[in-house]
Amino acid sequence: MAEGTSNSMWGGRFAHSPDAIMEAINASIGFDRRMAAEDIAGSRAHAAMLAATGIVSDSDAAAIREGLLTVLSEIEGGEFRFSTALEDIHMNVESRLREVIGAPAGRLHTARSRNDQVATDLRLWLRDRMDASIDGMAALQRALLEQAEAGADWVMPGFTHLQTAQPVTWGHHMLAYVEMLGRDAGRMRDARARLNECPLGAAALAGTSFPIDREMTARDLGFDRPMANSLDAVSARDFALEFLAAASICAVHLSRLAEEIVIWSSAQFRFVALSDRFSTGSSIMPQKKNPDAAELLRAKIGRILGSTVALFTVMKGLPLAYSKDMQEDKEQIFDAADTLLLCLAAMEGMVRDMTANRPALEAAAAAGFSTATDLADWLVRVADLPFRDAHHVTGALVARAEAKGCDLPDLSLAEMQAEHPAITEAVFEVLGVHNSVASRTSFGGTAPAQVRTQIAAWQERLG
Amino acid sequence: MAEGTSNSMWGGRFAHSPDAIMEAINASIGFDRRMAAEDIAGSRAHAAMLAATGIVSDSDAAAIREGLLTVLSEIEGGEFRFSTALEDIHMNVESRLREVIGAPAGRLHTARSRNDQVATDLRLWLRDRMDASIDGMAALQRALLEQAEAGADWVMPGFTHLQTAQPVTWGHHMLAYVEMLGRDAGRMRDARARLNECPLGAAALAGTSFPIDREMTARDLGFDRPMANSLDAVSARDFALEFLAAASICAVHLSRLAEEIVIWSSAQFRFVALSDRFSTGSSIMPQKKNPDAAELLRAKIGRILGSTVALFTVMKGLPLAYSKDMQEDKEQIFDAADTLLLCLAAMEGMVRDMTANRPALEAAAAAGFSTATDLADWLVRVADLPFRDAHHVTGALVARAEAKGCDLPDLSLAEMQAEHPAITEAVFEVLGVHNSVASRTSFGGTAPAQVRTQIAAWQERLG
Amino acid sequence: MAEGTSNSMWGGRFAHSPDAIMEAINASIGFDRRMAAEDIAGSRAHAAMLAATGIVSDSDAAAIREGLLTVLSEIEGGEFRFSTALEDIHMNVESRLREVIGAPAGRLHTARSRNDQVATDLRLWLRDRMDASIDGMAALQRALLEQAEAGADWVMPGFTHLQTAQPVTWGHHMLAYVEMLGRDAGRMRDARARLNECPLGAAALAGTSFPIDREMTARDLGFDRPMANSLDAVSARDFALEFLAAASICAVHLSRLAEEIVIWSSAQFRFVALSDRFSTGSSIMPQKKNPDAAELLRAKIGRILGSTVALFTVMKGLPLAYSKDMQEDKEQIFDAADTLLLCLAAMEGMVRDMTANRPALEAAAAAGFSTATDLADWLVRVADLPFRDAHHVTGALVARAEAKGCDLPDLSLAEMQAEHPAITEAVFEVLGVHNSVASRTSFGGTAPAQVRTQIAAWQERLG
Amino acid sequence: MAEGTSNSMWGGRFAHSPDAIMEAINASIGFDRRMAAEDIAGSRAHAAMLAATGIVSDSDAAAIREGLLTVLSEIEGGEFRFSTALEDIHMNVESRLREVIGAPAGRLHTARSRNDQVATDLRLWLRDRMDASIDGMAALQRALLEQAEAGADWVMPGFTHLQTAQPVTWGHHMLAYVEMLGRDAGRMRDARARLNECPLGAAALAGTSFPIDREMTARDLGFDRPMANSLDAVSARDFALEFLAAASICAVHLSRLAEEIVIWSSAQFRFVALSDRFSTGSSIMPQKKNPDAAELLRAKIGRILGSTVALFTVMKGLPLAYSKDMQEDKEQIFDAADTLLLCLAAMEGMVRDMTANRPALEAAAAAGFSTATDLADWLVRVADLPFRDAHHVTGALVARAEAKGCDLPDLSLAEMQAEHPAITEAVFEVLGVHNSVASRTSFGGTAPAQVRTQIAAWQERLG
Repeated sequence: MAEGTSNSMWGGRFAHSPDAIMEAINASIGFDRRMAAEDIAGSRAHAAMLAATGIVSDSDAAAIREGLLTVLSEIEGGEFRFSTALEDIHMNVESRLREVIGAPAGRLHTARSRNDQVATDLRLWLRDRMDASIDGMAALQRALLEQAEAGADWVMPGFTHLQTAQPVTWGHHMLAYVEMLGRDAGRMRDARARLNECPLGAAALAGTSFPIDREMTARDLGFDRPMANSLDAVSARDFALEFLAAASICAVHLSRLAEEIVIWSSAQFRFVALSDRFSTGSSIMPQKKNPDAAELLRAKIGRILGSTVALFTVMKGLPLAYSKDMQEDKEQIFDAADTLLLCLAAMEGMVRDMTANRPALEAAAAAGFSTATDLADWLVRVADLPFRDAHHVTGALVARAEAKGCDLPDLSLAEMQAEHPAITEAVFEVLGVHNSVASRTSFGGTAPAQVRTQIAAWQERLG
Repeated sequence: MAEGTSNSMWGGRFAHSPDAIMEAINASIGFDRRMAAEDIAGSRAHAAMLAATGIVSDSDAAAIREGLLTVLSEIEGGEFRFSTALEDIHMNVESRLREVIGAPAGRLHTARSRNDQVATDLRLWLRDRMDASIDGMAALQRALLEQAEAGADWVMPGFTHLQTAQPVTWGHHMLAYVEMLGRDAGRMRDARARLNECPLGAAALAGTSFPIDREMTARDLGFDRPMANSLDAVSARDFALEFLAAASICAVHLSRLAEEIVIWSSAQFRFVALSDRFSTGSSIMPQKKNPDAAELLRAKIGRILGSTVALFTVMKGLPLAYSKDMQEDKEQIFDAADTLLLCLAAMEGMVRDMTANRPALEAAAAAGFSTATDLADWLVRVADLPFRDAHHVTGALVARAEAKGCDLPDLSLAEMQAEHPAITEAVFEVLGVHNSVASRTSFGGTAPAQVRTQIAAWQERLG
Repeated sequence: MAEGTSNSMWGGRFAHSPDAIMEAINASIGFDRRMAAEDIAGSRAHAAMLAATGIVSDSDAAAIREGLLTVLSEIEGGEFRFSTALEDIHMNVESRLREVIGAPAGRLHTARSRNDQVATDLRLWLRDRMDASIDGMAALQRALLEQAEAGADWVMPGFTHLQTAQPVTWGHHMLAYVEMLGRDAGRMRDARARLNECPLGAAALAGTSFPIDREMTARDLGFDRPMANSLDAVSARDFALEFLAAASICAVHLSRLAEEIVIWSSAQFRFVALSDRFSTGSSIMPQKKNPDAAELLRAKIGRILGSTVALFTVMKGLPLAYSKDMQEDKEQIFDAADTLLLCLAAMEGMVRDMTANRPALEAAAAAGFSTATDLADWLVRVADLPFRDAHHVTGALVARAEAKGCDLPDLSLAEMQAEHPAITEAVFEVLGVHNSVASRTSFGGTAPAQVRTQIAAWQERLG
Repeated sequence: MAEGTSNSMWGGRFAHSPDAIMEAINASIGFDRRMAAEDIAGSRAHAAMLAATGIVSDSDAAAIREGLLTVLSEIEGGEFRFSTALEDIHMNVESRLREVIGAPAGRLHTARSRNDQVATDLRLWLRDRMDASIDGMAALQRALLEQAEAGADWVMPGFTHLQTAQPVTWGHHMLAYVEMLGRDAGRMRDARARLNECPLGAAALAGTSFPIDREMTARDLGFDRPMANSLDAVSARDFALEFLAAASICAVHLSRLAEEIVIWSSAQFRFVALSDRFSTGSSIMPQKKNPDAAELLRAKIGRILGSTVALFTVMKGLPLAYSKDMQEDKEQIFDAADTLLLCLAAMEGMVRDMTANRPALEAAAAAGFSTATDLADWLVRVADLPFRDAHHVTGALVARAEAKGCDLPDLSLAEMQAEHPAITEAVFEVLGVHNSVASRTSFGGTAPAQVRTQIAAWQERLG
C-alpha cells in the first residue's frame, strides 16, 4: 500500500474530494518506482534500436540515452522528486528527461506504449530477483551441506508422525533439504527461462507500423527472443504467477525446516541450540532462547501464498488485452520476492549458526526400540523368515525387552533364541543405532557412506 | 514489507552480517508504529488502573499518563524518532517515556506484558477501522439509493448468463447492491461485537498476581468485558481472521458491481457513463473513457483475499500461547483495512458520479422478446392454461414475431388468437417492458412500487 | 467431482462426442441430489402457498404435496433412478412427480424458477449443517470441560515460542479452547441468522406477477422473512462464503489443538497418551502410537480453506443475476460442511479419550526456572522494588541457582538475601509451580480458583 | 470426501462409536482406489527387482507378478470388493493377492513400506495426467489455430479496459491464447521432468539393508532415476504443488477466454455464436443462448486454485518424514487433474464449434475512431512530426470528424490539411481498419502476414 493511504487520510475520508480518492487508488508511483533502473534500461535499449533502424536520428537517440543516465543517477542519489500526479515511473522518468534534454525526449515514446513498457520492466525486475533467489538457494544448500558433512554419521531419530521410527543420520536429514532446495532452484530456473522473452515492441497491443527491430532490443536486454504475439505480450502475467508459485513452494520447504528447528529447540527435545543472533532471550530466564527467526520463517509461507492467491484472483477472468486490474501485480510480486530473498538469507544464517546436540540426538535415536525394523529385516534377510513371521518374532522380542526394562541389543543371545532358534550372534551387528544406520546402504539411504557420496555429488554440482 | 528490505539491501545481502538479516526479519517497528495512538491509549488506561488499585502511586500514574500524552503529540507531530533497535512500537514508546518522565516510567510495565499489550493495540486499531468500514458501507448504500430513487422506474435488461432474461428496473438493480452491503455491514457489526473483549491483564499468558482490575481497563478502552482466559487472550487471532473474511466478502460484492460497470461502460453496452474523475482518457481518442477505477475495484478482492489466506496459513497449527509467527498478522490486517476503506470510498464516488443512459437501457430491455415470460405467465394466470401449454403458445408467438421481424407487442390480436383463442386484448397490458416491470409486484419484485417501498425502508434504516 | 469424470472417461476423451463433454461439465445431479429432501420441502411449501392464494386449486396442491412425499420416500429408500439427462435435482424430482401424479405436476412450477428454487434448497441444506456444527462445537466444549474439571489444578508449562515461560494449569489450557469454540459457535449463529431469509418467490430474477404470499412460504420453511430484493435473492452467495469462512476459522482452532496433541504425544514430551481408537500402531514397535487422527485434524484446515478460496474466486466479478458459474458452489459447501462436522466429532472423541500424563506435565512445568517471573513480581509487589531492579535481582538469583544446579525454591533465604536484603521468608510462597499458579488470581488467570469459576460459568452456559 | 461421510451419518453422529468416526476420517480407500493400476505396476516392478537381486526366489516373484495381474483384472472388471477395514489401496491389493497366491504374497513387502509405495503410486498417477493435459493443451491449440487460420485477416476491436483501442485481427486474438497454452504445456513438461524420479526403495524413510537395485525399478516404471535421499523421497510433495500451480495457471488462461466468450455472446456484442451443444436455451425465448459451458470454464479456476491452496496449507510446517496430514494430498490432486482435463476438452469443443460474426466484428472495429493511433503514427513516421505534435493534430481531426458525425477516413484531404499542411493523400492508406491492421507488420504484430507466419510456425511445432 502506498504511503498516501495512511489512516489519517481514510479515517477522515469524507473531507476529501473524489479526485483525491481516485489518485489514491489509481497512482502506482508509490510502488513502481522500484523499477526505475529497469525502466531506464528498457528505454535506453529502445532508443538505441530506434536510431539503428533510422526511426530517430542518432543525435536524438544519443541525447536520450545520455539523459536517461542522468535521470538514473538522480534517482539512485535520492535527489529525484517523484510526482504522484505523473502516476507512474514511466511518466515520471519521461517527464524529467524532457526537463533534462528538451525536445528529443519526445522521440522516445515512438513505437512503444506504456503497456509493453511496464511488461518489460516487470520481467527485467523479476528476472533479477529470480537470479538472486537461485543464488540464495545455493547459499542455503551450502550451509546445509556443511552441517551434513560435520554430522554425516551422527545418529538421530528418524520420525514419522513425530514418533521415532528408525535411526537416521544428521547428515541424511540435512541432505533431504538440500534435495528440496535443488528442485526449488530448478523450478526457478525453468520459470526464468519461460519469462525470458521480450514484450517490448508490442506497443499498446497490436504491434506497430514503424520498422522496429525487436530482436535487437530483446538481445540488448538479455532476453532470449521477442514475444511472438503482441496481444499476449501486454496481457500475459503467467510469468508472475509462476514465480509466485515457485516462491511459495520454496517457502513451504523453509516452513518445514523452521518447524523442525522450533521443535528441536524446545526444552523437551534439545536437539539443536540456536545462536544468540537468531533467537531472543528473557532478561530473567537466562536459559530461555526463543527461536524467533525460525517462527517467522515458518510464517512467511503464509505471506507468499497470500500474494500468490491475490494475483491468481486478480487475473481470473480478465479479457484481453491490458486491463487496469493488472496494476495490482507489482506490489504482490515485490513483496513476495523481497520476502523470499530475506527468508533464504535468514535461514542460511540460522543453519550456519545452529549447533546440533549430538548426545541428545543419539540418545533419542536409541529410545523406543527404534531398531526393531532392523531386527525384522535381519530375520528376513539372513535367517530367511517370511516377512510375517519375522514381524511376529520381533514383536515378541520387543515385548521381552520392554518387560525387562532394557533395549533390544541388551537381550542375550539365549533370550533371542528362545523366541526363534535361527537367531545367531550376527544379529547384534544390526542392533544398536550405529549399526542400524550403517546397514542402510541402498541408494539414497541413511548410511554414512551414502550420505558422504551425496554430499560430494552436491558439492561438485554447486561448484 | 518494511522499508529496510529494499532490493539494494538483499541483492547484495552477502555483505551483510547475520545481525542485519535478523533485524530485518524480526523488527516490527516499520509497520506497528501505525498503532501508536492505540498503544498509548492502552498504556494510559493501564496506568490509571494501577493507581486506582494501589499498585502504583497516584503521582507515578499521573506522570506516566501525562508523559504518554507528550509522546503521542511528538508522534502525531512527526518529531518522534523511531528506532529499529527498539524493535516495536511498545518499546519505542516506553523508552521515550523514560526519557521524558524518568523513573516512574519503570512502573508502567507492572502486571502486563508485550503479549497482552499488542493484542489490545491490534483490537483497538481494528475496531476503529471496522467502525469506519461500516460508515463507508452506509455511505455507499446512500449513493446507490440516490441512483435507485432517480431511476425507480427506468427499465433495463435483467440478465442471466449475461443474456437478457426479463426487464427489470434500474432502481431494483441498484437495490440489490444495497441489500448486499446491508449484510456486509451486519457481518462487520457482528465481528466487532465478538472482537470487543479486552486482553489487557492477561500478562504474558497466565494472568498476574497483582490485584489488577480488568473490568476497569476494559471499560475505559470501550471494551464490553475482559477476556475470560489469559492464554486465549494472547493467542487468539480469530478476530482478525473474521475481519479479513468479512472484508473479503464485501470486496466480492464490490467486484461484482465493478465488473458490471466495466461492461456497462463498453461501447457495445453504453449503459452508463462514468465521470472524468473516475476514468482516464486518451489524448487522441476523445470518446474513449477507460473505467480505471472500476477495474481496480474489481481487482482489489484479490488483494484482500490474499491477506486473508496469508493469515489463515500463518495461524494454521500454531501451538499456544504466543508465537512469533503472529507478528505477521499486522501488515495483512493493515493492508486489508486500508484497501477496504479506499474501495468503499472510491465506489461511493464512482456511483455518485455515474450517469445511467436511460434510452440505451430501455432499448436493450425491450430487445430479444424479453417479455415472453410475461406472456406465458398471463396465459397461465388469466387464461388458465397449464404451464406447459402456455410455454408452447408463447414459443409459437415469439417465432411468429421473429419471422415478421417485430416484437411481441407488435403482433395483432388476431395473430395472437390464431395461436390460442383464449387470448384477449388484455394481454397487451403485460407486453412491453413498462407493463412487464409494473406487473412484478410480488414482495421484493422489480415493480417500481416495490422498488420505492424498499428505498423508503432503507432510507429510514440508514437514518 | 461427479462420478462420471473418472480417468477412463477423460483419459480417452477424444473418443467422446462434445455432447458427452458438455454433459460431464454441465450436469449437477451427481452432487445436488444431496439436496433432495430440501428441494421437496421447498416445493411442498410452495404448493401449499399456491393453493392458499388461489393460484392453483386445492386438489392440485394436495396431489402435488402428496406426490412429493412419495418421491421423497423413493429417494430415501434408494429406489429413485436419477437421470443425468435431467441435469439437476429439481428436474429429476419434477419429472418423477409427473409420472406419479400426472397433469397437476405441471402447476408446481408456477411463479417460481430454478434460480430461486436452488437458492432456497441450498440455504435450507446449509442451515441444517450450521445447526449440526453448533451442536458439534458444544459437544467438543463439553469434552474439553471434562478434561478441565479433572485437571483444574494440574500444573503444566505455559509455552511461548514452544519454550516454557510460566507454569499454567491443565484446566486453564483446556479452557482456552473452550473460549475459541464459544466464539466459533457465536460466529456460526450469526451466519445462520443472516442466512435465514427466504429467496423463494424471487422467480427467475424479477419477482412475479402472480399474487404469491412470500411471507407464508418463508414462515413454513423456518425462515425469518422473505428476501427483499429478487435480483439479490438469486444472485447472492455471501451466505455460503460466510459459512465457509466461519468453518475455516473453527478449523484453524482445531489445527492448533491438533498440533499440540501431536507434539504432546511425542516421546520427548509425553504430555498425553491417546487412546488406541484415535491412533495407529506398529506391529513390531508396541510402544509406538501414531497420532493419525490429530494429524488429519491438523490438515483439514487446508481442505476447508481450499473450498473457501474456491468459492471466493468463483464469485469474484460475476455480474448479476444468476450465472452458471454459481453451480460450483455446492460441492465446495458440501465438502466443507461434511469435513467440519467430521472434524468436530473426531476431536471430541480424541479429547474424551485422551489421558494427561500429570507427572510429566508437572516436571516440565518446574524446569527452566519457570517461576522467575513470580519472583520478580514478588519483589515489585511485596518488596516494592521498581520493575527494573526486580528484574536485575531475579536474573542474579537465577544465575546463582543455575551455577548450583538447583531450582529457585532450592536456594536458601541467606543466598537470596545476599542478592537483595528486602527478601523475606515469604518469597518462598510464590516459588514452586503450585504456588505460582495459585497466585495468578487475576480475572481469567491460571489460578485453579479462577479456572473453576470459568468451568462453572461454561457449564451453566452450555446447559 | 469418501462416501461414508453422508449427512445421515454425521447428523446423527452421537449414535456412532468413536471407532466409526476414526474410520471415517482415517480410511483412504474411498479415493485412493483410483491408483490401483499404478499400485500394481509399482508392485510388479518391485517383485521383478527382488528376484533379479536374489532377495526373493524367481518362482515367488513370478507368482506375485502373475497374481497381481489377476487382481488388476478383477479391479478393472468391477468384481473387486474393496474393504474399508483394510484402509487403503495398498493393503486391499496385498490382502487379495494373499488370497489368490498364498504364501509368496508375504514376500512382496520386503524392502519397501507403504510410505515409498504411496509416493510412487501418486507420481505415476499424476505423470499420466500431466501427459494427458499436455495432449489436451495441444488439442485446444489446434482448435484455436483453425479459428486463426480461417480469420487471419478478419478485423475486430483490440480492447484495453474493454474499450476499443485499435483494430486487430481475429487470427491474432486466437493466437494470443495459442501462445499462453504453449507456455502452459512447457510448464507442465518441466513439472513432469522434475517429478520423474522414483521414490521406491526409500522404504519407510531410511532406505534399507536389502541389496535392492533402485535403478532397475526406476527404469522399469519409466522414471529417469531413483530419488537421491530416502527421507526426501517419502516426505516430498512439491511435485504435487507444482502440478497444482501449473494447472491453476492454465485455468486462469481458460477463464480469460471463457470471460471473453461470455461477453462476446451477449446481445450487445454478438461477436460469436456458440453451438447448441455448448449452450442452453429457453423454451420460450428461441434467440436466447446461455453460454453455460463458458461460464463453468470461467469458474473452474476457483476449484483448481482451491485445491492448490488446500495442499499448500496442508504441507505448511510439516516436520519430516511422513505425517498422516499428507493423506489429504490425493483428493485435491485427483479433483484438480480431472477438472483440468475436462476443462481443456470442453474448451476445445466450444472453440471448434464457435462461429465468429465477421460483420459484427468489423463494424465494432471501425467504431470509435479506432485508427486514430494509425493517423498519429503516420504523422510521425511519414510527415516527421514530433510525437507530441502528431497527437495534437490527430486530436483535432478526431474532433472534426466527431462534429461532422463521420469517421476519420470520411474526412476530405482538404479538411485534413486544414489541421496540418504536411498531410497528403497517402494518409488514407493507413486509415480504415483493414489498412490499419495490414500496417502493423512488426514481429508479433497483428498484420495478417504476421499472423499467418505465426500460424505456420505453430502448426509445424505441433506436428
